[in-house]
Amino acid sequence: MNTFGKLFRISIFGESHGECVGIIIDGCPAGLPLTLADLTEDISRRSSGAKGTTPRNEPDVPEIKSGVFEDYTTGAPLTILFDNINTRSRDYTKLRETPRPGHADFTAMKKYGGFEDYRGGGHFSGRLTLGLVAAGVVAKKLISPVVVTATLREAGGITDIEAAIEAAVTKRDSIGGIIECTVSGVPIGLGEPFFDSVESLISHMMFAIPAVKGVEFGSGFAGAQMWGRENNDMLISTDGKTSTNHSGGINGGITNGNDLVFRIAVKPTSSTHQKQNTINMVTGEMVDLEIEGRHDTCIALRVPVIVEAATALVLADLMMQEGIIGRRYTN
Amino acid sequence: MNTFGKLFRISIFGESHGECVGIIIDGCPAGLPLTLADLTEDISRRSSGAKGTTPRNEPDVPEIKSGVFEDYTTGAPLTILFDNINTRSRDYTKLRETPRPGHADFTAMKKYGGFEDYRGGGHFSGRLTLGLVAAGVVAKKLISPVVVTATLREAGGITDIEAAIEAAVTKRDSIGGIIECTVSGVPIGLGEPFFDSVESLISHMMFAIPAVKGVEFGSGFAGAQMWGRENNDMLISTDGKTSTNHSGGINGGITNGNDLVFRIAVKPTSSTHQKQNTINMVTGEMVDLEIEGRHDTCIALRVPVIVEAATALVLADLMMQEGIIGRRYTN
Amino acid sequence: MNTFGKLFRISIFGESHGECVGIIIDGCPAGLPLTLADLTEDISRRSSGAKGTTPRNEPDVPEIKSGVFEDYTTGAPLTILFDNINTRSRDYTKLRETPRPGHADFTAMKKYGGFEDYRGGGHFSGRLTLGLVAAGVVAKKLISPVVVTATLREAGGITDIEAAIEAAVTKRDSIGGIIECTVSGVPIGLGEPFFDSVESLISHMMFAIPAVKGVEFGSGFAGAQMWGRENNDMLISTDGKTSTNHSGGINGGITNGNDLVFRIAVKPTSSTHQKQNTINMVTGEMVDLEIEGRHDTCIALRVPVIVEAATALVLADLMMQEGIIGRRYTN
Amino acid sequence: MNTFGKLFRISIFGESHGECVGIIIDGCPAGLPLTLADLTEDISRRSSGAKGTTPRNEPDVPEIKSGVFEDYTTGAPLTILFDNINTRSRDYTKLRETPRPGHADFTAMKKYGGFEDYRGGGHFSGRLTLGLVAAGVVAKKLISPVVVTATLREAGGITDIEAAIEAAVTKRDSIGGIIECTVSGVPIGLGEPFFDSVESLISHMMFAIPAVKGVEFGSGFAGAQMWGRENNDMLISTDGKTSTNHSGGINGGITNGNDLVFRIAVKPTSSTHQKQNTINMVTGEMVDLEIEGRHDTCIALRVPVIVEAATALVLADLMMQEGIIGRRYTN
Repeated sequence: MNTFGKLFRISIFGESHGECVGIIIDGCPAGLPLTLADLTEDISRRSSGAKGTTPRNEPDVPEIKSGVFEDYTTGAPLTILFDNINTRSRDYTKLRETPRPGHADFTAMKKYGGFEDYRGGGHFSGRLTLGLVAAGVVAKKLISPVVVTATLREAGGITDIEAAIEAAVTKRDSIGGIIECTVSGVPIGLGEPFFDSVESLISHMMFAIPAVKGVEFGSGFAGAQMWGRENNDMLISTDGKTSTNHSGGINGGITNGNDLVFRIAVKPTSSTHQKQNTINMVTGEMVDLEIEGRHDTCIALRVPVIVEAATALVLADLMMQEGIIGRRYTN
Repeated sequence: MNTFGKLFRISIFGESHGECVGIIIDGCPAGLPLTLADLTEDISRRSSGAKGTTPRNEPDVPEIKSGVFEDYTTGAPLTILFDNINTRSRDYTKLRETPRPGHADFTAMKKYGGFEDYRGGGHFSGRLTLGLVAAGVVAKKLISPVVVTATLREAGGITDIEAAIEAAVTKRDSIGGIIECTVSGVPIGLGEPFFDSVESLISHMMFAIPAVKGVEFGSGFAGAQMWGRENNDMLISTDGKTSTNHSGGINGGITNGNDLVFRIAVKPTSSTHQKQNTINMVTGEMVDLEIEGRHDTCIALRVPVIVEAATALVLADLMMQEGIIGRRYTN
Repeated sequence: MNTFGKLFRISIFGESHGECVGIIIDGCPAGLPLTLADLTEDISRRSSGAKGTTPRNEPDVPEIKSGVFEDYTTGAPLTILFDNINTRSRDYTKLRETPRPGHADFTAMKKYGGFEDYRGGGHFSGRLTLGLVAAGVVAKKLISPVVVTATLREAGGITDIEAAIEAAVTKRDSIGGIIECTVSGVPIGLGEPFFDSVESLISHMMFAIPAVKGVEFGSGFAGAQMWGRENNDMLISTDGKTSTNHSGGINGGITNGNDLVFRIAVKPTSSTHQKQNTINMVTGEMVDLEIEGRHDTCIALRVPVIVEAATALVLADLMMQEGIIGRRYTN
Repeated sequence: MNTFGKLFRISIFGESHGECVGIIIDGCPAGLPLTLADLTEDISRRSSGAKGTTPRNEPDVPEIKSGVFEDYTTGAPLTILFDNINTRSRDYTKLRETPRPGHADFTAMKKYGGFEDYRGGGHFSGRLTLGLVAAGVVAKKLISPVVVTATLREAGGITDIEAAIEAAVTKRDSIGGIIECTVSGVPIGLGEPFFDSVESLISHMMFAIPAVKGVEFGSGFAGAQMWGRENNDMLISTDGKTSTNHSGGINGGITNGNDLVFRIAVKPTSSTHQKQNTINMVTGEMVDLEIEGRHDTCIALRVPVIVEAATALVLADLMMQEGIIGRRYTN
C-alpha cells in the first residue's frame, strides 16, 4: 500500500503526468506552525535544473488542502498537493510497447494488466517523492532538535562529484552514487527489537525511494570483514556514548544515543542518452531504444533531501510512539 | 511491535532464559499438511554445535500448540513453542552493571527502565529466531514451487570460510560474513510501488534478524559505481527475462520474474573471548570485561536458514495479497 | 487515524469550511471502469435540499485527482476531491467560546488544544462523508452482484416519516431515526473469528458515521429477550439457507450466505432551532445558545446512502481478502 | 486476523479442545507489577459452575510464558497460556455432519474447507475469551484510576435475573441478556474522528465477543426516538461535565470526560437442551438434533467480565496513543 507509519502516517498518491501528486500526513500533532514558505527550501533542493539533473522544470508549487488553520496544524489529516503543469505526454506514448530497461514499465504493465497510467512512469515516477519532501519538512520540525543531514558522498564511483557528472555528460550515459545520512541528537530507546528495529524501519523507507538498491548501517558491509573486538563500539559514558560508531547508533534495533549513520546506494538513472535494446511486447522482436524524454544524468544528486525527509518521517513516528513528541505540539 | 505481515502475519515472543520462545502465524491458509517432522531439517540447520558456533546445545524441540488438527493447518492461528531447557542464567547476572559492547544490554536497560529480562540477552536474543525458522518452514511449503536459497558467501572477509573460522578461533575473536539469497520461480508482479516495494519488505525483515547491518539488491552498492547502460538489464523475452540481473529481479519495487537476488552483511558476533572494556553503569568507571558465556565465533554460519525463512515469510504474504496463494491451500 | 481497511483501504481528509473534503482509496483493483457520471446518483442521494435537510446547497462536484486513466482505475491510489464553495464561516465564529451541545466542539477543542479548525465542525463535519459516498460507489461496483440497500425505517419514533418531519419542523426541533441495511448475494465465509468478525468490521465503520449511536445485527436487542430455540435459525439447505434470519446472516463472525441484515440508530441532529443552554468556556457562566447556521431537521434522511457506502467498503475489503475480488478487476 | 490494537496489541490463539488457549499482549509498558494472583478474580468471575452456566469445570490455570520477569512486565510480549484439561471430544464428533443452529459449525466448515478443528467449536469457542479476560486484568491495572464496570441488567427480557434463569432451566431452553458497561474517570480526548472513534473501537471489540449482537452508546436506539433538544447533553462546567449523558460520554467520537456508558445485547446460548432441526450436510436431509454437550443456560451471566476486559483493552491502547500511559509504567 501507499502508506507508511503507525502514529504519524503518510500516504502518497498521484502520477507523473496526471493532474497532481501529493501526500497526506495523518496523525500530525496539532499546534505546529506551518506555512508554505517552510516548504520552499527542501522542495528546491529536490528540484531539477542543476547540472546533472533533468531539464524538466516544474514550478513544484505546494498547496495545503487540509489540516492547517491559521498557519498551525490542526491535528486533522494534513494534505499537500502539487499540480502537474509541465507535462509532455507525447514523449512517452511510443514507449508503450517497448518497456524501458531499468524502469517499472514492464512490471507495472504486468501487475496492473495494462491499465496503469504509463505516461512518464505514472505512479512509479520519482515525482511522487515531492510529497515525501514536503512531509519531511513537517517531520523535521517535529523532531527538532534532532537533526538529519544527508550528503552525496560519491558519484559514479568517485568522490569528486563534479568530475563524475562531467564524465557522464560527455559519455551521454548516467551514473549512480552513495549517500550518507547522519542524524544527531537522537534520543536513546527508539525502535523495537526485531520487526520494528530502527534498521528495519529506516531501510523500509529508504527502499521506497526509487533507485535505491542498498542500505547499510554503521560499518555495514565493511563491518562483515572486521574482527568482533574491532567492530564492537566501546561504551565510554553512562549516557551511552561510544568510542567508535560501527553500529551506526543502533544496538538490538534500538537507538543508543550516538549519531545514527547509514549509507544508501543509488543506482544510475535508468534513462540514458545511450542507445539501448529492449523487446517489443507486441511483436516479440528485439528493438533499438532511444529514450528521448528529459532525464537526470545522476538522479543521486537530487536524492539527499528525500533521504532526509524519509528519515525524519520514520523518526517522527518513533518519537510519537515513545511519547517524546506529544499529540499536541509544544516547543 | 513484534509482528510482521498483512495477510500472513507472524508474531514472536519469549526470552533466551525464560520459559520458552515461540511464534504465532496468523492467516495461514487452511489445509496445508504440517507435522513436527517438517520442522526438523531447518531447525537443525540453525542449531549450534558445528565448528564456529556456540556449544550451548539446546534440543530445540518444537511443539505445535494451536492451529493444526489431524496434521493439517486449520486456518486458525498456528502457534509453535520451544521450551528453554539448557539455560545457565548465572553466566549473565554479573553483566547487569557492565553492558556488553555490541549487544542490546545498554539500549534495553534504557528503553525498559531496568525491567527487561537481561539474562542472555532476554527478548533480544538470537534464540528468538527459532520461531522464525519454524514459521519459515510453513511459508516455504506455501510458496512452493518458489524456492529460496541462502548461502554464506564469505566470512571474515574471505571466501574460504573454513579457513576464516580457523583463524578466528585461533585469535579467540569473532568474525562476520556475507550471505547471498536467491529466490527462483518468483511470479511477476509481487510488491507495490513505494512503501511496500519488495526491497522495502525484504529489507525490513532482514534487519529484524540480529546482527544484520546491510542489505543490497542485485548489483547494490557496486551498481552505484556502474554506468546506467551497463547496470540496466536488457529485456530479452516478453515474459520478462533479462540478459543480466543487476536489478536483483525487482523494478519499481515489483518483481519482474527473474530471480530475486540480494546480499546481507552480518556483523561479527558481539561476544568474543577477547578481553574488552566497557563502563560500569553504577560507578561510572571503565572496567575490563571478559564474556564467559557460550557464544558463536561466527554467527553468520547459522543465519542462512533464518534468511531463507524471513524471505519465504515475506513472499507468502505477498503471494496471498496477490491471490496466488488462496485462503484454502490447494496443491 | 482517518484510515480504514486492509487491502482496500480508504483515507479521508478535509474540513467543512476549508478548501475541500476528499478521500483516497488505496488498493483499488486495476481495470474497473469509472467516470464522474458514476458518482452522481449517490452523491445526490446524500445531498441536502429535500424537506428536513439543511438548505446549505453545495454543488458537491467530485474531481478525480489520481488513480484513473482513460476511464479505468489504474491500481494506483484513487483520489476524489470535493472543493468547498458555499461556505459561510461567519456563522460559526461566535460559537468558539460556547460549545454547541451534542457536537464535537468541546471535545475537539480539548483534544487539539484549540488548534482545530472549528468552522462548521471542521474535520468533524458530516460533510466528510461525501468522500465515503464517492468511495462507496467504487466499492459497490467492485462487489457486484452483491447488492447493499439501506432504508430509513422510522424517524422520530414513528414509521410515517413524512409526518415525523412535519412535526419536527413545526416544533422547530430535530429528530433521529432507525436505518435498516440489507445485503443480498453475500458469499459464504467473509470475516474472521473474533476481532475481524463481520459484525466488528461493519459496526466499526457504522460508528464512524457521525450521529450513529447504536448498531444491531439480525434480531439484535430484541433477540436478547428470546428463547434460544426461537432465536436460532434452522439450516434448511446445504448451501446455508436458513428458515429465519435472526443471526443477520452471520455466525461466529462469518457470513453464512443469507442476507446480511443490521439496523443503526441515528440520533437527532444536534443543531436545532430550539434555544439551548451551554457554558461559556471563557467566563465559566451558563449562557443561552441559538444556533443560527443551516442544519438538518432529520439528518437520518441523508444517512442511508452513507450506510450503503460504508457497508460496501467493508465488503469490498473482505472480498479482496478472500480472493473473490482480484487485484485486477474482471467482470 | 486474531489481533487488535495499535500500541497495546493483543493476539489470541487456541482451540476449545486443542492443547491450550492463550493470548499475547504486545506493547505492554515495562514495569507493571504482575503476578498470577492478579488474574484469579477475573478468571473466576468468567468461569462456569454457577446456576445457569455450563458444568464444564476447567480449572483455568493461567501460565505466564513470557514478558514478565521477577513479577514485573518487561516490555517484551507478554504471553499467557491456559492448558486445556477437561476436554471431552467424543461429545462433538457426531455433530460433524449436522451443523448446530446458531453456532459457527457451518460457516467454519465452509470457510476453512473442512480443515477446521470442529471439536467444541474449535477456535470459535467462547473459551478463547479466557485470554481476553487475562489480558483485561493487565489493561485494568494500566488504566487505573479509570475504572470499568459491566453488569448484567436483564436476562430473558426481565430484570429479575434469578427468576429468568429458573424459568429457562425449567423450560430446558436458553436465554440471552443485556449488559451495561460504565467507565468512570475517563480522560477527555480519547479517540479520533471517524474510523477510530471511541464508539468504533469499542463496538469492534464488543462484537468480537461471541454471542454479542448489538451495541448502543448512551441513549442509543431510544435516543433515535427523542427530540434533539431532549437528547442533547447540556454542558454545565468547563471541564466538560454535562447535565445528562445521552451521548454515553462521547461526542464526535471523542471522550468528553463524562462516564462512558454503553449496552450490549447477548443472544441466547445457541446450544439448548431443546430438540432442534438441522440439515445433514452429507445426505441433504433434515434431521433432529439434540445437543448433548455441556452448555450454559445463559451465557450472558459470564460475559460482564469479558466486556470489562475488552473495554479496558481498548482504553489502554487509546491512553497509550495519547501519551497518558507511557512506555514505562509509573504509578
